[in-house]
Amino acid sequence: MLGARGGWRALRRCASLPRAVRLRVCEALGAREPAEAVRVQGWVRSVRSQKEVLFLHINDGSSLESLQVVADPSLEKRDLTFGSAVEVQGKLVKSPHKMQNMELQAETIHVVGPCDIWSFPLKMRERHPLEYLRQFPHLRCRNNTLGALLRIRSEATASIHSFFQDNGYVHIHTPVITSNDCEGAGELFQIETSREEKESVEKSHFFNVPAFLTVSGQLHLEVMAGAFTHVFTFGPTFRAENSQSRRHLAEFYMVEAELSFTESLQDIMQVMEDLFKTVTSTVLSKCPRDVELFHKYIAPAQKGRLEQMLKHKFMIISYSEAVEILKQAPQTFTFKPEWGCDLQTEHEKYLVKHCGEVPVFVVNYPYDLKPFYMRDNEDGPQHTVAAVDLLVPGVGELCGGSLREERLPFLESRLQRLGLTDAYQWYLDLRKFGSVPHGGFGMGFERYLQYILGVDNIKDVIPFPRFSHSCLL
Amino acid sequence: MLGARGGWRALRRCASLPRAVRLRVCEALGAREPAEAVRVQGWVRSVRSQKEVLFLHINDGSSLESLQVVADPSLEKRDLTFGSAVEVQGKLVKSPHKMQNMELQAETIHVVGPCDIWSFPLKMRERHPLEYLRQFPHLRCRNNTLGALLRIRSEATASIHSFFQDNGYVHIHTPVITSNDCEGAGELFQIETSREEKESVEKSHFFNVPAFLTVSGQLHLEVMAGAFTHVFTFGPTFRAENSQSRRHLAEFYMVEAELSFTESLQDIMQVMEDLFKTVTSTVLSKCPRDVELFHKYIAPAQKGRLEQMLKHKFMIISYSEAVEILKQAPQTFTFKPEWGCDLQTEHEKYLVKHCGEVPVFVVNYPYDLKPFYMRDNEDGPQHTVAAVDLLVPGVGELCGGSLREERLPFLESRLQRLGLTDAYQWYLDLRKFGSVPHGGFGMGFERYLQYILGVDNIKDVIPFPRFSHSCLL
Repeated sequence: MLGARGGWRALRRCASLPRAVRLRVCEALGAREPAEAVRVQGWVRSVRSQKEVLFLHINDGSSLESLQVVADPSLEKRDLTFGSAVEVQGKLVKSPHKMQNMELQAETIHVVGPCDIWSFPLKMRERHPLEYLRQFPHLRCRNNTLGALLRIRSEATASIHSFFQDNGYVHIHTPVITSNDCEGAGELFQIETSREEKESVEKSHFFNVPAFLTVSGQLHLEVMAGAFTHVFTFGPTFRAENSQSRRHLAEFYMVEAELSFTESLQDIMQVMEDLFKTVTSTVLSKCPRDVELFHKYIAPAQKGRLEQMLKHKFMIISYSEAVEILKQAPQTFTFKPEWGCDLQTEHEKYLVKHCGEVPVFVVNYPYDLKPFYMRDNEDGPQHTVAAVDLLVPGVGELCGGSLREERLPFLESRLQRLGLTDAYQWYLDLRKFGSVPHGGFGMGFERYLQYILGVDNIKDVIPFPRFSHSCLL
Repeated sequence: MLGARGGWRALRRCASLPRAVRLRVCEALGAREPAEAVRVQGWVRSVRSQKEVLFLHINDGSSLESLQVVADPSLEKRDLTFGSAVEVQGKLVKSPHKMQNMELQAETIHVVGPCDIWSFPLKMRERHPLEYLRQFPHLRCRNNTLGALLRIRSEATASIHSFFQDNGYVHIHTPVITSNDCEGAGELFQIETSREEKESVEKSHFFNVPAFLTVSGQLHLEVMAGAFTHVFTFGPTFRAENSQSRRHLAEFYMVEAELSFTESLQDIMQVMEDLFKTVTSTVLSKCPRDVELFHKYIAPAQKGRLEQMLKHKFMIISYSEAVEILKQAPQTFTFKPEWGCDLQTEHEKYLVKHCGEVPVFVVNYPYDLKPFYMRDNEDGPQHTVAAVDLLVPGVGELCGGSLREERLPFLESRLQRLGLTDAYQWYLDLRKFGSVPHGGFGMGFERYLQYILGVDNIKDVIPFPRFSHSCLL
């Protein structure tokens, strides 16, 4: 046995260069003072060889911006190409160029991993369209746009976690494999064990009951809302919509929250609005250059929209008012607006436009349109439930929420009419033991990213696109 | 259309009590000064009615401790029972009792939701065993132990996210639905669309290829490690092990990280150790009472072990040394220790004990035992790869990691021998375009919780237990 750390034989040690201080590209770029003996590692984004000087740009994913390396032409090598991985050692000095703060004067350049540029699908200084990049899910993260997207996605994720933590919510990992379908929707993925395993358990279901991939963690969060006043979850959800559209994903992320002792939809809407604005402000301030790339090249109008959105309170209209607005619209819709019918994408777009291209909450939807768990408003003759959808420009429905039916008799009679009493016995149980008024909402994370960045195709805001449903990695 | 906020009709407003300041139980307990007109909401954990005073304990999940409410017996009602949900309004005053800081002198008590105590499976002041609670996955969160567990789980989750964010890692949501099985293991869940959907796509696979639930995000992280030097993921992973054991779950959470430009297993181990210690220290300092509950009633020996663990560097031994230790052990094992064979749980337990009941890294495992992506140490005659496992007392293997084979020729010949070249063409591609030495690790989150809390059955550290594989919610 060996003591802690060191002294053990078979492990390879680092290469034998004298150890200079290792800096990430973002650290080198942001340095206040020049420094001797600095070491930077990353991938070459450009090589420009002049008679008296060799210029490189090195990127390591820590920022959109690359670090300029200035070297003597004698350091040039055959495998020092676009796409290769390098380690550069030298002096960090103030850059004479206005566009950047620091540059690295190379003393040594070591090509760690060469790049076969002839078969590499990315080309130097080319602005590849997103559709092109989608063909290379394993390589497209080396492109500026996708790099920016992934940093933004990471920052938004962290900000969502912080928002809820700062506000006293308990994070619950709701199950991915579940036997409930939450809304009675039919678009579920079913789970089976792979063939060999299946035989060994004699063709029975692995879980004894049919098991599906979750479509929402809501009902599980409601369980937790019987012991904690504020809970949230943020994880993958699934829909087997056989869709090649720009708007749908089989696997997507959803933020969901549930609040106990809440009697008003306004409280739910306040959290939705706060979450939306807090996360967006954080992303804008932490990734300004990454966001700018999207607002410059992908969706030039989006910057102004976002600024407007952050400045103003979101609008609130009722479903009934929304239908009236649609009926009075000068334009004709493919689906005629009628009280009692779902709002279609064309309707949502018109409503958002009508309200001045700002986010709009639509509240109190027809009772017969909505799932059993939504709270009966006991109104009439137009019978509604306390549901809310948040519509945003360009994307349509971004969030959905409701007060939940906490009253046992209402829930019992509704489940009985639907023939669901047996399946939801556990859910009825929750109403027998200290039931409280509560409500919650969900926000599609990819839709959110699409909205703030102005990305048209939802497959461009996920780390691994599955175009044509066939290219799973 | 209505202006922002207010003025809209059908929404129910809060009840008509004069609005006192709403405090959570943890806020009331931690208040520095007495306060008039305070409102607390929660669930009744105990009721004690004396001749001249009525005592309640109210819990809202914000802390293990409940708030004591002192009231005039005239406020007692028939439905004010254990398990009922209440809203209490009154004065917050210094408590005359040593054990607590503040108590609430009730002016009004409103029973928001009564509890049918005869059918409620939890009983007042009873210490229910964890096995008993596991039968009620939808109600057990109202128990102290499970409440503590869920707060700890939430805090540990937040701390894991912070650790990686603070250290400049980019968070990647690796796919849950995937066509790769990462290690060639057979214990996969396969995905199908539910029946109706299946017919509509003419019985072909929804994704055109067989699709499975992920067993690890490692290979996807490796893709990202070609553009970012530090990436991590923290999400659900799946194994179709048909096991009723205390050690296995079909669905569990895994933290995984991948580091580029890393030539040494020591760098990987350093991150594992830092992560482990940082998260554990945070949980101990943020949830002292919740952790204490476990260390007092569930696993009395665990507290000292954890303190030892935090103070010392983790041990490191090689696999070969481990086998020698086992061969020289005075005890006989069910599986005879032999170079080239996997370490069994009994072996891992002995090694940890031999090293003084502290966490131990075991490094450099036999080449033939490990998956294709692990880096060849090119040693002999005992041929090894740069793999590492972290063993901890009581739990066994907690983390596993390795350097990855970044050299194209090594990887090509290994995949060819295994007949996997076609399946992993995209993985080979990564080695053609700026490949760098890299490595990473994964840590099972539930195993981690089991270890720090000393919980014997892994089903007691997840929010929704699935005992007997039949009780999916």
